[in-house]
Amino acid sequence: MDSPIENYLRRIHAELAGLKDGKPYSAIPAMANVNPDCFGIALATADGYVYEVGDTREEFSIQSISKPFTYALALADLGMEAVDAKVDVEPSGDSFNEISLAEGTGRPANAMINAGALTATSLVKGSGGRSRFKRILDTYSAFAGRDLDVNQRIYTSEARSGHRNTALGYLLRSFGIIETDPAPIIKDYFRQCSVMVNARDLALMAATLANSGRHPLSGDEVLDLASVERVLSVMTTCGMYDDAGSWISSVGMPAKSGVAGGILAVLPGQVGLAVYSPPLDAHGNSVRGVAVSQRLSHDLGLHFVRAARTGRSAIRAIYDITAAPSGIRRTDEAAEILAEHGHRVQVIELNGDLLFAGAESMVRALTELPDDVELVVADLRSVDEVSDVAIRLIAEAEDMLRRSGRELAFVELEGTVAASLQELGRETASFTTRSAAIEWCENRMLEGHGTELVLPDTIEPADSPALSPLDPDDAQLLQDMMEDRTYDDGDVVRRVGQRFGGVFFIVSGQIMTSIPGPDGSRVKLATLGPGMTFGEMAMGEDRRQETTVKASGPVQVKVLTADAIDELAEQDPVLSMNLWKALTQDAYARVEQYLREAAVRIHD
Amino acid sequence: MDSPIENYLRRIHAELAGLKDGKPYSAIPAMANVNPDCFGIALATADGYVYEVGDTREEFSIQSISKPFTYALALADLGMEAVDAKVDVEPSGDSFNEISLAEGTGRPANAMINAGALTATSLVKGSGGRSRFKRILDTYSAFAGRDLDVNQRIYTSEARSGHRNTALGYLLRSFGIIETDPAPIIKDYFRQCSVMVNARDLALMAATLANSGRHPLSGDEVLDLASVERVLSVMTTCGMYDDAGSWISSVGMPAKSGVAGGILAVLPGQVGLAVYSPPLDAHGNSVRGVAVSQRLSHDLGLHFVRAARTGRSAIRAIYDITAAPSGIRRTDEAAEILAEHGHRVQVIELNGDLLFAGAESMVRALTELPDDVELVVADLRSVDEVSDVAIRLIAEAEDMLRRSGRELAFVELEGTVAASLQELGRETASFTTRSAAIEWCENRMLEGHGTELVLPDTIEPADSPALSPLDPDDAQLLQDMMEDRTYDDGDVVRRVGQRFGGVFFIVSGQIMTSIPGPDGSRVKLATLGPGMTFGEMAMGEDRRQETTVKASGPVQVKVLTADAIDELAEQDPVLSMNLWKALTQDAYARVEQYLREAAVRIHD
Repeated sequence: MDSPIENYLRRIHAELAGLKDGKPYSAIPAMANVNPDCFGIALATADGYVYEVGDTREEFSIQSISKPFTYALALADLGMEAVDAKVDVEPSGDSFNEISLAEGTGRPANAMINAGALTATSLVKGSGGRSRFKRILDTYSAFAGRDLDVNQRIYTSEARSGHRNTALGYLLRSFGIIETDPAPIIKDYFRQCSVMVNARDLALMAATLANSGRHPLSGDEVLDLASVERVLSVMTTCGMYDDAGSWISSVGMPAKSGVAGGILAVLPGQVGLAVYSPPLDAHGNSVRGVAVSQRLSHDLGLHFVRAARTGRSAIRAIYDITAAPSGIRRTDEAAEILAEHGHRVQVIELNGDLLFAGAESMVRALTELPDDVELVVADLRSVDEVSDVAIRLIAEAEDMLRRSGRELAFVELEGTVAASLQELGRETASFTTRSAAIEWCENRMLEGHGTELVLPDTIEPADSPALSPLDPDDAQLLQDMMEDRTYDDGDVVRRVGQRFGGVFFIVSGQIMTSIPGPDGSRVKLATLGPGMTFGEMAMGEDRRQETTVKASGPVQVKVLTADAIDELAEQDPVLSMNLWKALTQDAYARVEQYLREAAVRIHD
Repeated sequence: MDSPIENYLRRIHAELAGLKDGKPYSAIPAMANVNPDCFGIALATADGYVYEVGDTREEFSIQSISKPFTYALALADLGMEAVDAKVDVEPSGDSFNEISLAEGTGRPANAMINAGALTATSLVKGSGGRSRFKRILDTYSAFAGRDLDVNQRIYTSEARSGHRNTALGYLLRSFGIIETDPAPIIKDYFRQCSVMVNARDLALMAATLANSGRHPLSGDEVLDLASVERVLSVMTTCGMYDDAGSWISSVGMPAKSGVAGGILAVLPGQVGLAVYSPPLDAHGNSVRGVAVSQRLSHDLGLHFVRAARTGRSAIRAIYDITAAPSGIRRTDEAAEILAEHGHRVQVIELNGDLLFAGAESMVRALTELPDDVELVVADLRSVDEVSDVAIRLIAEAEDMLRRSGRELAFVELEGTVAASLQELGRETASFTTRSAAIEWCENRMLEGHGTELVLPDTIEPADSPALSPLDPDDAQLLQDMMEDRTYDDGDVVRRVGQRFGGVFFIVSGQIMTSIPGPDGSRVKLATLGPGMTFGEMAMGEDRRQETTVKASGPVQVKVLTADAIDELAEQDPVLSMNLWKALTQDAYARVEQYLREAAVRIHD
């Protein structure tokens, strides 16, 4: 099927192809013979999908769009302080080739004007057997995700006619801003301007900046986040020369243009945009490039203010575990204790990204919990990103909870938050499923508020919750019909797909259940202990085992086998009926459990 | 419990209170006697929670922080084009009181310098019985969320010593930028600078801008989004005078400062920050205000580049309905048709916000569906915000799907996306629960790929899936024991909390089930039709009805009552056993269904 986004871009392309204003750059002879009708639009997402319309594979020289990337390399090499000592970050308000040097010091206003760009080039040194220029070219290639190269004809032409830039290089040398012979630096600057790219390259270079410095396709970290932040900041105020204010108002994305007709714009976190169209306006920016950027920003909501997430609460639901217990069958005494004390365990379900605003909502909710809460489970399974700030705030909240005698646990598939907290010296419990977390909390409640007998090590089938509706003699009768089995740690007790093999009662030890996920990976479901049953689910529609059951440590079970069940049906239909009735109740107790959980989760 | 964020702010406050550089503004006599140690930090979230540390209730004059809000009012009154004709949006690179007027036209460079601010004031007209100044004051008050007022002493002092601003007013009049007598306009400008605010007010004014123009506590829309975008754009490049580049690099939030010592900064979508501390640096910005802003931006990740969401895919899962069917019991023929054609129905589960990047992922997934897919269900229950852009893209995708003979349906609690599409002339199905959506899709598959008999209007209990494991004679025997009942549209058949009243078999018509949510609201669960059962769940642990069941249109049911069930147990224990066995299987079929759904959803 066609993509509506591609269709949209095709419409914009067709419409703005009619815009015939402006003239291609002609000061460099090798660039004068360009086709003014060449027009390409490329939009790359932060995950590396590139929408391309028009002449997006037509190559042209990168020109000034090289500036942010050389500046990026200088920042990565030397750090901000050393670079800032040589180049400031203030908009000059002047056009691109203005000689904006600070009075007295000669420090260029910013790295997006020629003086600052020459200085940035001078700050890059050869290393590891690679020359300055090779390192610059490798950096551009890493941003683009393919090997780029210089057009020698354009380079020669630039070098021959770039008198003003040569003057600027020597002027910078006279102020001591450039510290070595300016001649090779000026040559490398002309070389970097002559690197050939196409609109697709520029879109991916922009997407790499949008994706926090990581190339969306290669996955390589091309630039650290602090440098990305700095480069995009400078592009915001200085990227479009003396058109910065109107650009930020009408487009609202950090951007850079080049005199060959390229424009690159970045919406942090979302997309990289590139346009190629040679005719330029009075500011030296591509006429169609500016028009496309304005249209896309408006139509697709790409302005940084509009694209900012609304700070909606990251909290999906807060409930105590009496609203959605673990579903584990408990003795009457245990059930009473949990009914009485379950409100002491609160579950906070979060979603979205935990940047400052999300983390703030979470931490605020933690500080506002009633005084009698003892355990808090933060369910992070729907959370996408957890920022460093969020980790620090959660760590502080954990300290406070611990000092007031409370404990924080997590439900998260990878356990990354608990691992990050551990690095900061905080031990927290982490579970991959909600039910495992709740079970752990329930057991903590039973230990804290119950007697020793509430969590016995051994439960005979006759005393299990599943058989509790039966007359005690009947339950004992059934228990006597069962087979004893024992398993060692890691033994597979039941496997997905096995036929119904009877009802298994855990006497002592623990088992783990898991199910296959949609892609064949294993999803852990629950830990079951003494008094609990498994295997009966294979009684369901297709009479096949739905879960894999593994022993977790040594386990002792008693099994009412399928044969024993058939025999019972013939010899004692009344007891058989009561058994089925008890199992039906048990099954519906679980269905109820799912419904309760659904009611808690659906509501939002 | 203490808040870690408040603790953090207290630490920063204590630390930066030691910063003794700078001097309070002294050019206006009434402002000279200020206490230089006054120091308050207020951080307001986009949902209106305000963290306050230090002197956040100490009042001071708003001064230049008034400029963006008067500019906002002018934009709201006249629209961008008319305002732009009078005031440009380019940074001047000059200090705040520089006379930056364009050569020839006299148009001020932007509305954040005095010349532009005076012009913005002149653009506001009295209306509806309110004077110009009353309208300005009401606007500030609406942003702050409380009634603000002018300090007459400061106003008089400003008016007496503001010769430069008076000169500027007349100069603007001479260029025709100000079109009427400048004297009252200059007075109103002095008045607006003398409006008294505290740091808490400023934080809420900033949070209103962060919250897309809606005051987070009053809920009032104080400013339209397009004007918010414009105001924050101009603040980005021009808000901190000649310190704009360094500010955007080190703080990265649109901001405005005032000579009384206030600073306000906005992180779109997330927070509003305000600092009050009178001593100023050479740029006229509060020394501690700048230091606090830099620290908070760094420590809390508030720089607009860092705070941008990573464009992680909005897609949580894609699966076809054979992986997680509706769970409705079907005839064997129907089940076979669904097994064969279920892959033609794809469910796309989304989360997060659907701004451009999220919508792009969704639309891309829609375009990449296999050719034989006929129905697509977009499950939006975990989606927070759906932007206008997302609606337009979804509408286009819907057109394309429809043209290729496919259909799009939604699961969403409020039905807002379907309603928005309807406004754009697209009719789509929308359901509040996943199971209702899947059931609808399944029925569409059965209509399209099955025979007429697959979805009969009437199913007798003996032919229902629940009794299918039984011998046909036994099933007929049970059916003969049942009571006939009929209900009209809206009749409550079973109510939450009722004791077990038997097993209800739907013969014809439809019923709806719902459960109470955690806050007592009703959550719809499913629609059941002929051949399906209900009421048996009350056999669960506490033998109480867990769902409310309502007739949806006229309904005919047959009930195997609790009494009939007891009677059967005594008279025919074998049949009774077989009934329970069938019901156990049925219950476990549902548990399996939940497990399958969990496996699809847990995996992410």
